[in-house]
Amino acid sequence: MAQQLADRRDQDFVIWEQFDNAKLLENEHYQGFDKKTCEMIITEGRKIALKEVLPTIREGDLEGVQLDSGVVTTPQSFKRAFELLRDNDWGNLSVPKEMGGQGAPHFVGTTVDEYLLSNWPLIAYLTTGIGTAGMIHKYGTEEQRKKYVPKLVTSQWAGTMLLTEPQAGSDLGAIESSAKRNADGTFSLTGNKIFITAGEHDLAENIIHPVLARIEGAPAGTKGISIFIVPKYLVKDDGTIGARNDIWCTGVEHKHGIRASATCSMTMGAKGECRGYLLGKENQGLPIMFNMMNGARMHTALQALAYGSASYLLAVNYARERIQSRELGQPATAPPVAIIHHPDVRRNLLWMKSYVCGLRSFFQFTNLCSEKAKLAATEEERQLNSDLFELLTPIVKSYTANRSYEVCVQAMQVYGGAGYTQDYLVEQFVRDCKIVSIYEGTCGIQAADLLGRKLPMNKGRAFMALLNEMTKTVNQAKEMDALKELAAKAEKQVAKLGETAMTVGMNAMDPKKFKTAFAHSLPLLDVIGDTLMTWMLLWRAVTAAKKLGLNANKKDVAFYNGQITTARFFIKTVVPASIGKMMGIQSMSTAAMDMESDAFASL
Amino acid sequence: MAQQLADRRDQDFVIWEQFDNAKLLENEHYQGFDKKTCEMIITEGRKIALKEVLPTIREGDLEGVQLDSGVVTTPQSFKRAFELLRDNDWGNLSVPKEMGGQGAPHFVGTTVDEYLLSNWPLIAYLTTGIGTAGMIHKYGTEEQRKKYVPKLVTSQWAGTMLLTEPQAGSDLGAIESSAKRNADGTFSLTGNKIFITAGEHDLAENIIHPVLARIEGAPAGTKGISIFIVPKYLVKDDGTIGARNDIWCTGVEHKHGIRASATCSMTMGAKGECRGYLLGKENQGLPIMFNMMNGARMHTALQALAYGSASYLLAVNYARERIQSRELGQPATAPPVAIIHHPDVRRNLLWMKSYVCGLRSFFQFTNLCSEKAKLAATEEERQLNSDLFELLTPIVKSYTANRSYEVCVQAMQVYGGAGYTQDYLVEQFVRDCKIVSIYEGTCGIQAADLLGRKLPMNKGRAFMALLNEMTKTVNQAKEMDALKELAAKAEKQVAKLGETAMTVGMNAMDPKKFKTAFAHSLPLLDVIGDTLMTWMLLWRAVTAAKKLGLNANKKDVAFYNGQITTARFFIKTVVPASIGKMMGIQSMSTAAMDMESDAFASL
Repeated sequence: MAQQLADRRDQDFVIWEQFDNAKLLENEHYQGFDKKTCEMIITEGRKIALKEVLPTIREGDLEGVQLDSGVVTTPQSFKRAFELLRDNDWGNLSVPKEMGGQGAPHFVGTTVDEYLLSNWPLIAYLTTGIGTAGMIHKYGTEEQRKKYVPKLVTSQWAGTMLLTEPQAGSDLGAIESSAKRNADGTFSLTGNKIFITAGEHDLAENIIHPVLARIEGAPAGTKGISIFIVPKYLVKDDGTIGARNDIWCTGVEHKHGIRASATCSMTMGAKGECRGYLLGKENQGLPIMFNMMNGARMHTALQALAYGSASYLLAVNYARERIQSRELGQPATAPPVAIIHHPDVRRNLLWMKSYVCGLRSFFQFTNLCSEKAKLAATEEERQLNSDLFELLTPIVKSYTANRSYEVCVQAMQVYGGAGYTQDYLVEQFVRDCKIVSIYEGTCGIQAADLLGRKLPMNKGRAFMALLNEMTKTVNQAKEMDALKELAAKAEKQVAKLGETAMTVGMNAMDPKKFKTAFAHSLPLLDVIGDTLMTWMLLWRAVTAAKKLGLNANKKDVAFYNGQITTARFFIKTVVPASIGKMMGIQSMSTAAMDMESDAFASL
Repeated sequence: MAQQLADRRDQDFVIWEQFDNAKLLENEHYQGFDKKTCEMIITEGRKIALKEVLPTIREGDLEGVQLDSGVVTTPQSFKRAFELLRDNDWGNLSVPKEMGGQGAPHFVGTTVDEYLLSNWPLIAYLTTGIGTAGMIHKYGTEEQRKKYVPKLVTSQWAGTMLLTEPQAGSDLGAIESSAKRNADGTFSLTGNKIFITAGEHDLAENIIHPVLARIEGAPAGTKGISIFIVPKYLVKDDGTIGARNDIWCTGVEHKHGIRASATCSMTMGAKGECRGYLLGKENQGLPIMFNMMNGARMHTALQALAYGSASYLLAVNYARERIQSRELGQPATAPPVAIIHHPDVRRNLLWMKSYVCGLRSFFQFTNLCSEKAKLAATEEERQLNSDLFELLTPIVKSYTANRSYEVCVQAMQVYGGAGYTQDYLVEQFVRDCKIVSIYEGTCGIQAADLLGRKLPMNKGRAFMALLNEMTKTVNQAKEMDALKELAAKAEKQVAKLGETAMTVGMNAMDPKKFKTAFAHSLPLLDVIGDTLMTWMLLWRAVTAAKKLGLNANKKDVAFYNGQITTARFFIKTVVPASIGKMMGIQSMSTAAMDMESDAFASL
C-alpha cells in the first residue's frame, strides 16, 4: 500500500542519514534509547496513527463540537482514539522522565507527531496539558507540582492557555482580566477570554487553566501581568477532585477548519467565585508564558508540516491512480494514462515535494539545535545551537505555515474538481492548515520578532552563524562533480541573503527608515526561509550522493537520485525567483509607508 | 460608509479614465447607452447587490442545498433575491437585444457583476441559462430558438451544461453518455454526468440541459461527440410545459465552498425515457461547446476578481477599525492604534491592492478587446483585438483565479484569528474563491492551451502584438518625470518576458524537449500574468499622472497618488521576483521529467 500521512523512508533519511541522530543517542541523557528502540517506537506510532487517528479526521470535521449549557461535547469518534493514545502514553513520549514522561528523544517524538498531528484537534485535547505541566514544573511550588503535573503529563487532566481577550490579541499588554487577592493567599479572578483551544471538553476529568490576568494595583501594560493556575474543578489536598470552579465556556467558534477543536470563549468569576493560584512571582506572567513560546512555535510548525506532508502523499497517490488524457505528444488513438505522466502535474508534484522535504529537514534541524543546546558538551557548542534555535523558531513557524498551506492548496489542484469536495481529505487539510499562519503569533508577528529581536541579538551573531553553517554544506557540495553547479547557485543565494539581511537590518536601526524596514520584515523572513530550503535540499543531495557511491540497492538508488533531482529542480527553478525577491527587498521601497491611509480604498 | 464588495471610484477610473469606454458608446451598436445611463445602471446594480445580495452570501453558505428524492432545495434567502434580480432583468443586462436582453455594453454588465458575483451560487442559478440560450440562438433551429431562448434569457427557465463524467473530466474525448436515434428524429439519451452546476433546483420552472453525448456508431474520441437539448420538462409546441423528462439529480456534492450552489450528479435515461433534441450538426458537440468557452473563462475570472475585490475591502475596513498595539517606535505608554498604521499590515494591504487593481484593469482590458473585435471598423483593428482576446483568455482565467485567491487568503491574515471564524465573510470568500482555479479548465489546462495553441497561433502574432501594446505604455511613461524609473524597470521585464516565451516556445516545438517545455507552461502563464499586472499598473499610473497635472480636487489627488504609489510598490518589489521566475524558466530544468515516478514518494 502507498505511504500515507508521512513518507517513512524520507523521515528515516532525515533523522538517520542527513542528521545522524544516532550520535545524539550516545548521550547519557538518552540512555535506553538506541536506534532500534527509536525505530520501533516510530513504527508503532505510525501504526496507531494510520489505524486509529486517520479515520477520525474527517469525522471530527463533519461532527465538530457541540456546546450546551457550558458543556462541550467532542466528536463521538474521538473518545476511543483519545483513550487509546492516552492509555498508551502517546501524549508524553518526549516529555522528560523527571516530569513523568517517556523521555524519548525529541526527534522520535516529532517524527511520530508528523503522523498524529494530521488530526490536530484530537492531539490538542491530548497534549495541551503538557505545556501547562511544563510551566508548573518549572515555576510552580512543590505543592503545585505534586498536585497537577503527574495527571497533566498522563493526559488524565487536560490543560489550556488563557491569553487572548477581545481587545488583547497580538498585544497582550492590553489584557484586562483581573485578580483580587484573598485573605488565604488565593486570588479571585474575573474577566473574559476568547480563542481558548480546548477551553472546555469532555475528554478529561479536569482541566487546568493557566490564566494571564492583572493583580489589582499592578502596573499598566506588559509589566503588570501575572499568571494563575485556575482549575476547572478545584483539587483537594489529597489530589482528588473538589468543587466546580467559577470558570465557564460561554461560546465556541465556528471556524474555517480544525472544526473538531473546541475554540472557547471563557468567562471567569461570573458568580464572583473563580479561584486562582498564583504561578511563580507576581507580574511575571509574560516571561513565564513566553518561556513556552518556542515550544508552541515548534509544535505549530510541525502541525503545518503534517498537513503538507499528508496532502502531498494524497496528491501523489491520486496522480498515480487517476487515468485521464493520453500522454503528451501521442496520437489521438493512444490510451489515456495516469496523470502523474503529464508534465504540468509532475512539475506541481515536484514543487510540492521540494517544500515538504525541505521543511521536514528544516524542522528536524531546528529541533536538533534545541537538543544540542541542551546536551552540549562545550559552551561554544551550546551557544551556537542556542543561537540558531532562537533565530530559527519564528522562521520555522511562519515559513512552514505558509509553504505547507500552499502545498495543501496545490494538492487540491492535482485532484481537480474531486479535491474541492469533502470526499477527499485534501479539502479539509487546506482549511485546517490555514490556522497555523494565524495562531501562536501571526506571520507578521513572527517577522517582527525576527527583525526586531532575533537578527540584532548579539550584533547579529546568530545570523552570521547560520550563514556560516550554510556555507559548510555549499563547500561540501562544491567538491562533488554531480553537485558543483548547484553548489555555485546556492552560494550565490546565500551571499545575496547576507547582503539583503544587512540592508534591512541597517534600515531597521535608522530612526528615519525603521518603518520601511519593518514593512519588509515578512518578505525578509520568507527569503531566509527560501535559502534554508536550498540549504536543506542541497544537504540532502550531498548525503544522497555519498550514499550512491556506496553501492546502494536499486530501490535506494531511485530514492537517492530523487533527492538530487529535487534539489536540482528547486535550485534551478525556485532559487532565481528568491534572489529576485531579495533584489526587490533591497530596493527598500517606501511605498507601503508613503501610501495615504485613505488611498487604500475610497471612503 | 466604507466601500463594500468593489471600490466604485476605482471601477470608474478603469472604465472611464484608463480605458475611455465613452468612445465605445459612440458606436451605433450601443445606441441609447450614453455615459450617464451607464453610470446610473452601475449605481442601481451596486445598490441591489449591497442591499439584497450581500446579506444572502453567508446564509447561503450555512444553509447549503438539500436533495430529497431528486428535488433540490436552495437556501431560503435566495428566493427573494433571485426573484428581484430576475424580475428587474439583472441577469441579461449585457445580453444582445436580438436575443431579448438589455443590450448594455459588456463593461457595464461586468462592472455590475463584480458586485453581484460575490454571491456566485445565486448568480449562477440566475444566469447559467444565458449560456444555454447563446448556444441555442447560434446553433439551434428556428423552432428551437423560439421555444427556449426567450424564457432562458429572462431567467424564467434555467440552463446548465452537462459535460463532465466520472472518467471524463479534463478529457472530454472520454465521454460515454450515448444517444440513440428515435423514429421521430428525437434521441433517447442514457448516461451519468457529474459536477453539474445548478443541475437541479427550485428557482426556475424548467431547466434546459445542453448535454454532450455520442450518437450510436459515432467515431471514437473528440470527433464523435454531439450536443443535445435535454429539457427537464418537455416543452409543448405552444411553449407550455409538458411531461417530466427522464433526467434526474441523484446526488449533490458537499464542497469546500460555493456551498449554496447545487453541484449535481445527473442520470439520464434510468427509465429509458430521456428525450433529447440534437443541437446543430451531428458530431459537432465539442466545437459548439467550445464556442462558449471564452465566455465561461471570462465569467470565472470575474467571479475570482469579485472575491478578491470584496475581500480586499473587508481587510482595509477591518484594518482601519481594529485597534491593536501602539505605533512602531513609540514608547510603551503610547496608546494603541488602528492596525492599518502597522508597517507589515500596510505592506500586505498594498500588495493586495496592487493585484486587485491590476486584475480589474486586466479584466476590463480583455473585455474591451472582445468588444473591439466585434465592433472593429477595420480588419486590422479586428484582427489585433481578436488576437489579444484569444491569447488573454486562458491567462485572465488562470491568473485571476490564483492571485485573487491569494488576496482572499491575505485578507484573512489581516483579520488574524477573527478571520478564521465564520463571523466574517473573508472566511467564506477564501473557500468560495478556490473553485475558480479548478473548474472551466484547471490552471494546468489553461496553461496547456496557452503554450499549445495560443502562443504558436499565426507564428506568435498575438503574443508579439501584446508585447507591442505593452511597449506603447512603457514609452508613454518614459516621457513622464515621475514615472521614468518605473518605465525603465517595466521595459526590462517586458524584454525578459519576450525572451522567456521564446525559449519555452522553441522548446515546445522540439520533439526531444517539448515535455519539459510543457512542464513550464503554468510558470510561463504566471510570468505573462505578472507582466500584465506591471503593464496595467503602469498604465494606471500614466493615466493618474496626467490627471494630477490637471488640477484635480483634493480627494482625487489622494486617489491618483495612490495609483502611482501602487505601481511603484509593485514594480520595485514584485517585478524583480517575476524576472527571477523568468530566469528560472529559461534554465529549462528537466528535473520534473527526469524524476522517476517511484521517487516522488516511497511505495
